[in-house]
Amino acid sequence: MAAHLPTTEKGRATRLRILEAAARLISERGAGAVSLEDIEREAEVGRSQLYHYFYDRDDLVRTVIDVTTDAVLGAQDGLLDDLDSFAAIDRWFDALVALQDERGAIGGCPIGSLVGQLAERDEPTRTALAAGFARWEQPLIDGLARMRDRGELKPEVSVQVLADVTMAAIQGGLLLTQVRRDPQQLRHSLDGARTVLAAAAVV
Amino acid sequence: MAAHLPTTEKGRATRLRILEAAARLISERGAGAVSLEDIEREAEVGRSQLYHYFYDRDDLVRTVIDVTTDAVLGAQDGLLDDLDSFAAIDRWFDALVALQDERGAIGGCPIGSLVGQLAERDEPTRTALAAGFARWEQPLIDGLARMRDRGELKPEVSVQVLADVTMAAIQGGLLLTQVRRDPQQLRHSLDGARTVLAAAAVV
Repeated sequence: MAAHLPTTEKGRATRLRILEAAARLISERGAGAVSLEDIEREAEVGRSQLYHYFYDRDDLVRTVIDVTTDAVLGAQDGLLDDLDSFAAIDRWFDALVALQDERGAIGGCPIGSLVGQLAERDEPTRTALAAGFARWEQPLIDGLARMRDRGELKPEVSVQVLADVTMAAIQGGLLLTQVRRDPQQLRHSLDGARTVLAAAAVV
Repeated sequence: MAAHLPTTEKGRATRLRILEAAARLISERGAGAVSLEDIEREAEVGRSQLYHYFYDRDDLVRTVIDVTTDAVLGAQDGLLDDLDSFAAIDRWFDALVALQDERGAIGGCPIGSLVGQLAERDEPTRTALAAGFARWEQPLIDGLARMRDRGELKPEVSVQVLADVTMAAIQGGLLLTQVRRDPQQLRHSLDGARTVLAAAAVV
């Protein structure tokens, strides 16, 4: 049985409904507690429809990771496009903290939350998670590279390492924000990343 | 039905067997996918034994968080006692990275991995996770406070904030280490925390 991409509007809607149902159930109960039967019931589709669009349960879970990444990047829409100045990075950091304020520090990072339950499942699932983080990080790597090329960052700095440190600060800050119900945890973590970035600047 | 602490050697062994079985299954399958039946089968105990030591499933899960914290702190045995110098902090950071090297960057943080699946379950469970992180962080807060009191850190710095940034760097670094199977992710994240700590030092 092969997975198909939908060719009709109705097909696209059905596939999306399955993915949204799966993402919702996995977020609520954890991936291990969600069966195909649960997803079929939630999405109001039959097994044959599900297998038309997804090769198997693992294929569905990995596609959920992809659409979760789409949603996370969508929530940062416009902020990731030009991360090539400290002003733009500050706006991005402020927006990430503001989002946690709005959400009452509930839920953590939608992608990060999947790591603990899915990263050790199998290699393709781990790779899907890694691909999600890579997509998120790339605009920052690109922006920092432009800053370095313009002589605003020291020529010897690794923009990859600076971006990795920043992504770790976002994930760690969001995790502590969730556990402590305190958006200041993310604020302080991002202030720390900002100190590291500033140390790489040409002054 | 009330939960009892074991009074005999045999009782202590039974309670520990239940907790270890529950921790193992939750780590392997995710908390949502583990039933009391699964834990009874894995620990080779009956329902009445389980209810003798644990009030209910939630009580058992929260106790698993506590023993997971014990294990994480135990793995850092001796390193957390005197975190009141940059040399001691560097030794601690080096040991955390060495542990990930040994483990092939597999598994992430045993406590952090539980956050995504348990933090939104109920308030007592979130509080148990927060208590785990607080126990882990306290030796660092104490050590940094001693450094400040000796005049090695600037008097105006918040040792709580410095410790929060460090804990976030550990969590974010471990998450990216796991997803990317690369202990250098933790190394870079901890180097970033080290830059933040150094910026608070009296020079």
